[in-house]
Amino acid sequence: MRVAVLGATGYAGVELLRLLLQHERVQLAVVTSRQYVGKRVSDIYPALTGKCDQILQEIEPSQVAAQSEVAFTALPHQTSMDIVAALVEKDVRVIDLSADFRLRDAAVYARYYREHQAPQLLAKAVYGLSELHRKAISKAALVANPGCYPTGAVLGLAPLFARRMVRGSVVIDAKSGVTGAGRSSAVELSFSEVYDNFKAYQVGVHRHAPEIEQELGALAAKPTVVFFAPHLLPINRGILSTMYVHLKKAISDERITELYRKFYSRDSFVRILPEGQFPQTKDVRGSNDCAIGSRYDRRTGTLVVISAIDNLVKGAAGQAVQNMNLMFGWPEDEGLRGTALVP
Amino acid sequence: MRVAVLGATGYAGVELLRLLLQHERVQLAVVTSRQYVGKRVSDIYPALTGKCDQILQEIEPSQVAAQSEVAFTALPHQTSMDIVAALVEKDVRVIDLSADFRLRDAAVYARYYREHQAPQLLAKAVYGLSELHRKAISKAALVANPGCYPTGAVLGLAPLFARRMVRGSVVIDAKSGVTGAGRSSAVELSFSEVYDNFKAYQVGVHRHAPEIEQELGALAAKPTVVFFAPHLLPINRGILSTMYVHLKKAISDERITELYRKFYSRDSFVRILPEGQFPQTKDVRGSNDCAIGSRYDRRTGTLVVISAIDNLVKGAAGQAVQNMNLMFGWPEDEGLRGTALVP
Amino acid sequence: MRVAVLGATGYAGVELLRLLLQHERVQLAVVTSRQYVGKRVSDIYPALTGKCDQILQEIEPSQVAAQSEVAFTALPHQTSMDIVAALVEKDVRVIDLSADFRLRDAAVYARYYREHQAPQLLAKAVYGLSELHRKAISKAALVANPGCYPTGAVLGLAPLFARRMVRGSVVIDAKSGVTGAGRSSAVELSFSEVYDNFKAYQVGVHRHAPEIEQELGALAAKPTVVFFAPHLLPINRGILSTMYVHLKKAISDERITELYRKFYSRDSFVRILPEGQFPQTKDVRGSNDCAIGSRYDRRTGTLVVISAIDNLVKGAAGQAVQNMNLMFGWPEDEGLRGTALVP
Amino acid sequence: MRVAVLGATGYAGVELLRLLLQHERVQLAVVTSRQYVGKRVSDIYPALTGKCDQILQEIEPSQVAAQSEVAFTALPHQTSMDIVAALVEKDVRVIDLSADFRLRDAAVYARYYREHQAPQLLAKAVYGLSELHRKAISKAALVANPGCYPTGAVLGLAPLFARRMVRGSVVIDAKSGVTGAGRSSAVELSFSEVYDNFKAYQVGVHRHAPEIEQELGALAAKPTVVFFAPHLLPINRGILSTMYVHLKKAISDERITELYRKFYSRDSFVRILPEGQFPQTKDVRGSNDCAIGSRYDRRTGTLVVISAIDNLVKGAAGQAVQNMNLMFGWPEDEGLRGTALVP
Repeated sequence: MRVAVLGATGYAGVELLRLLLQHERVQLAVVTSRQYVGKRVSDIYPALTGKCDQILQEIEPSQVAAQSEVAFTALPHQTSMDIVAALVEKDVRVIDLSADFRLRDAAVYARYYREHQAPQLLAKAVYGLSELHRKAISKAALVANPGCYPTGAVLGLAPLFARRMVRGSVVIDAKSGVTGAGRSSAVELSFSEVYDNFKAYQVGVHRHAPEIEQELGALAAKPTVVFFAPHLLPINRGILSTMYVHLKKAISDERITELYRKFYSRDSFVRILPEGQFPQTKDVRGSNDCAIGSRYDRRTGTLVVISAIDNLVKGAAGQAVQNMNLMFGWPEDEGLRGTALVP
Repeated sequence: MRVAVLGATGYAGVELLRLLLQHERVQLAVVTSRQYVGKRVSDIYPALTGKCDQILQEIEPSQVAAQSEVAFTALPHQTSMDIVAALVEKDVRVIDLSADFRLRDAAVYARYYREHQAPQLLAKAVYGLSELHRKAISKAALVANPGCYPTGAVLGLAPLFARRMVRGSVVIDAKSGVTGAGRSSAVELSFSEVYDNFKAYQVGVHRHAPEIEQELGALAAKPTVVFFAPHLLPINRGILSTMYVHLKKAISDERITELYRKFYSRDSFVRILPEGQFPQTKDVRGSNDCAIGSRYDRRTGTLVVISAIDNLVKGAAGQAVQNMNLMFGWPEDEGLRGTALVP
Repeated sequence: MRVAVLGATGYAGVELLRLLLQHERVQLAVVTSRQYVGKRVSDIYPALTGKCDQILQEIEPSQVAAQSEVAFTALPHQTSMDIVAALVEKDVRVIDLSADFRLRDAAVYARYYREHQAPQLLAKAVYGLSELHRKAISKAALVANPGCYPTGAVLGLAPLFARRMVRGSVVIDAKSGVTGAGRSSAVELSFSEVYDNFKAYQVGVHRHAPEIEQELGALAAKPTVVFFAPHLLPINRGILSTMYVHLKKAISDERITELYRKFYSRDSFVRILPEGQFPQTKDVRGSNDCAIGSRYDRRTGTLVVISAIDNLVKGAAGQAVQNMNLMFGWPEDEGLRGTALVP
Repeated sequence: MRVAVLGATGYAGVELLRLLLQHERVQLAVVTSRQYVGKRVSDIYPALTGKCDQILQEIEPSQVAAQSEVAFTALPHQTSMDIVAALVEKDVRVIDLSADFRLRDAAVYARYYREHQAPQLLAKAVYGLSELHRKAISKAALVANPGCYPTGAVLGLAPLFARRMVRGSVVIDAKSGVTGAGRSSAVELSFSEVYDNFKAYQVGVHRHAPEIEQELGALAAKPTVVFFAPHLLPINRGILSTMYVHLKKAISDERITELYRKFYSRDSFVRILPEGQFPQTKDVRGSNDCAIGSRYDRRTGTLVVISAIDNLVKGAAGQAVQNMNLMFGWPEDEGLRGTALVP
């Protein structure tokens, strides 16, 4: 199977390359980069020398279509719409890592991003949270790969919403490593500003909130609101989401664990921790795992759920590969069997 | 004024030395360290060479009393009780940085720590959150210097509780640098375990929760419960506390800011940020400041308040010096005028 | 093929597990840990849950011999001698990651460590720098896996010594991540001490110097001295060695590169960078690669060579697996094809 | 005394503000910033709120001259020449933190930077390494504040060159924190690229080499060459320079220490460590100190000298303040008495 990676030199792009190189059923046919056309991938990322020395090309949808059956588009939000539309038109199956096709409602998209340029595709796009939409993904022409924060948050809360156990709104206090912002020249993301520092940002106004609300609302079959407060961790990879939920009824920690284990019984990448244990980001660094722990506090009636993912793997490139595996009927963990890099 | 620092080679101890060396009204008369008796402070901390070359002594309460008017006890929890009692008996004014005299209720102390050994002193001890208990501190024989987490959390929530604006329990999602755990040889706090990692710990069961509840409850004049979830940041200094509160009534961000500014109008170390701004840990690193920002979310009725302190300064040694200044009627910021180390 | 990992919960041990899990020809038969007997590996390292849930055993050489054909011994220096001897006696092929069998001269070992307990094995042991001793390794009963610093330094300098191009002594200014010290409870290796800090240690007296001198001397067929100055980097993985050499004759950068490329023409893990480029540690993080760059300075007659490895992979577990592959005639990169984790 | 800080929002600029706020003899009269004209300093650096809320102005030399007696110019290399010339013309005493007036030879400047625009001032400028040029600095109209690397390297080697003990060229293997590059939007200096990474850069071709050679050559009264290899540390502050020197004669470590102590006997900021001890960057973080340790290796005839400074303090703003103190006959440590921030 020939695959294309569009936007191969961004952080999600290069992570796709790392994973696809371990994948036994695919062959990298096309790699593109607007910024580095004509250079080798390994000129930009020397770690790939001898493993991926292909020449970076301009994006030409017809050439991409001629040379590949499936394309990963890892382009900036709002710029991939046209390209995705052109590829889908030419029957290339697309896994889009931007936010452009994640929100089903074009009006919500317009509120958080800008006017949508290809609204006709929204109905066709399948939201690619693999564990929740496996069947639809397997048949999809276009998969909208979820945002990194929504992946960790929705996996952490899905069993509760599917069982309609939640009362009122939910607080999601999320902490992400810096690569979530992409390869960036913003002064605020320079080493000197981020190192030995910690802060919240876009509190209550972040673009990933509507994505989370869409998915949790669909699970509960009713409108859902979350209060989402992202924070910037001085590390590269990892999202830890600490989520505070009021349950309709008190419950034991054993029951919660059991409920989660059952909900995710078919999902080899989701790891439910024993009672009293919580995940840490390093236990998923470099792997496609999502680790989840929880504790119920009777005094306040609060259930706290903590999930950990690697934002570049399960939160981006890894889930994209998992979705490709679903789309082509391959083993779901093909190319994704690597263990987290510890320590 | 001659001062003693007991436990001078722990992190709170050496931070006391740094600040006291800048203080114009005191003279370091006694420094003790169980581990390094007979060595110079500057043998352990070369940065102090030429500035603090005193010999570290054993702790002898009668000698301490003979040589100093005020003593900072920066000893491990549960071991300072006897020493503090002996010093108070000899009329040394004591600022105790351990947890031993913070909780007014010996039964609560026993539940979270162990049986109290000097319960008769609990009534005498003043909780040393400078901004809230200035008058009592000024007359105190024994000041129980607050915990690092309670300092950030209580300062961040005090105006709301004093005005009885809060409905239900509060969520405190706190993130602390590693020095909060003291100078430690625990494998879990080794560089290789903590670096490039992030996790929660003691979720819902941390010892600082009853301290926070005691102070917020006193402000609101009614029992108060909080859900407290601490996390370990891979940095050395700084606590960022993100707090989620349900208000009885909706309120504008301007009103909240105004209310906070008014509440802290006499408090030069508390900085209320303009609407829409939130603090970061580096803006208080090395300083005695507490910076606070907030935002009210109408959709969920949630007020989020974020406070930042340096756990070793406002969360320990700095507030201890501030309390000494109050006890002796000196300018409150004497020895504490240094600006945060940025970047 | 059944393999044993003795000392599986140290950092080299768990890295061996990570790599062996990706290896298609072996099966983990025995894992031991003195500290955690009776627990599962995945209790200690949750990242291995579902991938390596075996019970950690006491070390029993006869059981190890009964259950495995090859054993990796990742035990502390000076404690593995007896165990290695017992295993070799029972015809288990051993790859020892300690320093105990690296130095051919028991007197040198005694000077840097202590009296050797199994000197009779020294002649049998093959120094496992894969690229230099491939043939001997393939037949060895006992491979002494090289130290992390020697691996980076010797690979960086070998072509020059093999060609006898060097005049006088060599300066090796090496910088290592903290995992090189193992899983440790030393206060000096606690996060608070190492973070945001940098220092040299054991300058001119480090135990890896004689190992480097032994190998470079063998290549040049004459006694060789190096001045070795290790430094502690506030990162987890990676050694960058900056080496300063006086050449007997001036040479162009092109010639140097050509010479290195030729010397390592059969070695897929050694990457010689183009003229003017130098490696960085992150380009080898998690991979078994060694990347090397150099520049000749005519003004001072100095050739600077910089090599980068991951101390836990090429500097320990990865090279150990590479040596196993050589010992059993398997493809040299089996289990070692993973790309570095970037960013 | 009224002072101006030109370029107040760069890292050297804001560090100047931090130090000048602690200085009892000066008053900040003018602060400028091209990028943030019209904003308050504390809008950019919230840590300065209430301490330095002045409005940032455009640079107008005549206004600067009207409002201040001394000016710190912390502007990018090659852009400060005109402004410095205008200020000097108007009898403002200038301490220039750029590289523009450090090299006495305009031809050398042209080779490493570009054609010099104010060569007539080069003879007037005094190289501001305080410990070496105290007398000339005290009378100077224009002080060229040294580069960060040259400060650490020259202080570490000066006693040897002044006594003409060195044979041949010197190797300087220097490692610097990231703030040395200034406040930057370069992708290579983004957090994601620098974190958990280590590399050399500009090996043998860095602009600070001629500055070091100028000063060491002047001390030895003969042309001197160094091989200078800078590296980028993943920390914010600190330069550790490891220097390798061949001595003409063997010498004991005690003699070396004695010689260094004598050479720096009047210099309170230079700390010579006892034999066998080497400095670490955190022991000088935030302070104006330079700590130096050394060891002589008889086997190779190499003396290794290691010096540590904070690049933003002794390597920039702190030394600039020290130079101002010398220029006006104030105590040399006025405003510079703060202890390093440890841990």
